[in-house]
Amino acid sequence: MSRFWSDTARRLTPYVPGEQPKLDKLVKLNTNESPYGPSPRAVEAIQHAASEDLRRYPDPNSDALKAALARYHSVSPAQVFVGNGSDEVLAHAFIALLKHAAPLRFPDITYSFYPVYCGLFDIAHTPIPLTDSLEIDPADYAAGGPIIFPNPNAPTGRLLAIDAVEAILAANPDVPVVVDEAYIDYGGESAIPLVDRHPNLLVTRTFSKSRALAGLRVGYAIGSAELIEGLERVKNSFNSYPLGRPAQAGAIASVEDEPHFRDSCARVIATREWLDQALTALGFEVLPSAANFVFARHPAHAGATLAAALREQAIIVRHFKLPRIDDYLRITVGTDEECAALVDALKALV
Amino acid sequence: MSRFWSDTARRLTPYVPGEQPKLDKLVKLNTNESPYGPSPRAVEAIQHAASEDLRRYPDPNSDALKAALARYHSVSPAQVFVGNGSDEVLAHAFIALLKHAAPLRFPDITYSFYPVYCGLFDIAHTPIPLTDSLEIDPADYAAGGPIIFPNPNAPTGRLLAIDAVEAILAANPDVPVVVDEAYIDYGGESAIPLVDRHPNLLVTRTFSKSRALAGLRVGYAIGSAELIEGLERVKNSFNSYPLGRPAQAGAIASVEDEPHFRDSCARVIATREWLDQALTALGFEVLPSAANFVFARHPAHAGATLAAALREQAIIVRHFKLPRIDDYLRITVGTDEECAALVDALKALV
Repeated sequence: MSRFWSDTARRLTPYVPGEQPKLDKLVKLNTNESPYGPSPRAVEAIQHAASEDLRRYPDPNSDALKAALARYHSVSPAQVFVGNGSDEVLAHAFIALLKHAAPLRFPDITYSFYPVYCGLFDIAHTPIPLTDSLEIDPADYAAGGPIIFPNPNAPTGRLLAIDAVEAILAANPDVPVVVDEAYIDYGGESAIPLVDRHPNLLVTRTFSKSRALAGLRVGYAIGSAELIEGLERVKNSFNSYPLGRPAQAGAIASVEDEPHFRDSCARVIATREWLDQALTALGFEVLPSAANFVFARHPAHAGATLAAALREQAIIVRHFKLPRIDDYLRITVGTDEECAALVDALKALV
Repeated sequence: MSRFWSDTARRLTPYVPGEQPKLDKLVKLNTNESPYGPSPRAVEAIQHAASEDLRRYPDPNSDALKAALARYHSVSPAQVFVGNGSDEVLAHAFIALLKHAAPLRFPDITYSFYPVYCGLFDIAHTPIPLTDSLEIDPADYAAGGPIIFPNPNAPTGRLLAIDAVEAILAANPDVPVVVDEAYIDYGGESAIPLVDRHPNLLVTRTFSKSRALAGLRVGYAIGSAELIEGLERVKNSFNSYPLGRPAQAGAIASVEDEPHFRDSCARVIATREWLDQALTALGFEVLPSAANFVFARHPAHAGATLAAALREQAIIVRHFKLPRIDDYLRITVGTDEECAALVDALKALV
């Protein structure tokens, strides 16, 4: 603590991201990155953007990217917000939309950045416990304060069916509801088509997972024009130019390469099904996943012990030292080879 | 206004950046971009970064970039903070360091984003009038609340001598003092060597001006390790990965290309001196500038009128409709040809 810090800085408990080791030869299954590269057209677009006009500020409003995303999702550009990764988009949503007198609600087991944003922006919040099967139960979200949840949820990977999402919206028409769809492209049904009926719904998305552009930092949100305007007000009070020229160009090219995107997602889903079966065969209890990771525990082996043992073999998975999920490992779906290496290592351990 | 917005979103008056017109053939002298490109090594580094591992998250701590900046400025890496443009660095400084019980102080005429941050983070603030010659007078900054000012100041371009900066620091050892050196490379003396004697001093910098990378979005700050830790706490509560792989790689390469940097700055300074003389010859009153722009007014012509007339000839400069500086134009130092076109156009107007 420093006397020069504000009270805000003093009270923070910052987020701890999954580690990004600087070693080669790792089987890195800890941060849910795509095992396949981004669209080659995105790479080309970034390289082209680097070669021209980098001395100029980028378009502060990212109009071309918003137009591409609007076309892709069949909404208007005024319904699209973009930011420096979906973490920044979420941060702006917390301060612009989720800070109200009534405490914000989110699952007790969820993306661990949510309570961190609450700390930064001084937002009261109430955890809503997942069911015993680690699912969101819409009945637990009767009318009350604003709501945010990921769908599929993280780190469980469990999907909430679209009618259950709409049930939560129907019960809460008077408060903002944010559905964080970072992992929706791996088999879930998006809530984006609901935005026209629900002016309180904001759906957030990322280019870091299914579009394999974690290294570029682009995220976005879709919602009613009034919600988007609230986000723009905060963005324009924080950083006018959140996305550089390479980021805007790369993201546009990615959105426009549908075959590459579909193919990558399909391959990850196929490997996930194989991994689920292989882990089950080893005695793991694997939650049904609609994400690019699986969440699994072994009845006879502690999660922390397994994670440490895997690390000794240069295989990194994520373990959360948190109530209710301390036994679990969150394992990113890598390539077939990476998943096979993981299963082989676990076979020797359990 | 929307009922879904937070009180914070409702009360904001967002910043309005200089426009980024999407037309070609403009003489664009409104946003203080470099007229010369970035280091070719930076372009190559961005292109290389795009070709490898974009699917991976970047280093959340930008350690290699911090090391490069630490070497460049002869400080330790723990004294370096980096962000998505200096606007993001400033935003974090406002919430981490400048929000205290005593009102924040900054000049009445200065970077117009400062009061916007205060609105976003609910920071009380007091404007300190510049002198009649639009200068910062250190005597006006006796002991009191935290302080921020740009040096050279914007949009005046006037430089505060380093002993005057140190006088402000000496009078205010108990509160954070942020010196925003976005324009220091055009002839000013940096306060960075003072950070070791003044643990309350934070110096912010950008890659958008003298390094000609406005399109990439990288800024940084240098200060005592305890100030930097305060910034890191906020950064890690907002967005773990503010700088993508292309941004980190491009910034490192830029820092390592000293000849290109020095040459660009020298050319801008030479053109600035020519522009100053040419405007003076036309009857303009030109403030002494240590930046890559000049701030000038004509005794017989209103700033808004001149700006509008220039715009009709596809020459864009910046005019601020604000008390005390309404008569002035802020003119970016472009290439010799751009500045000559501007002077020719003004010759016909005044």
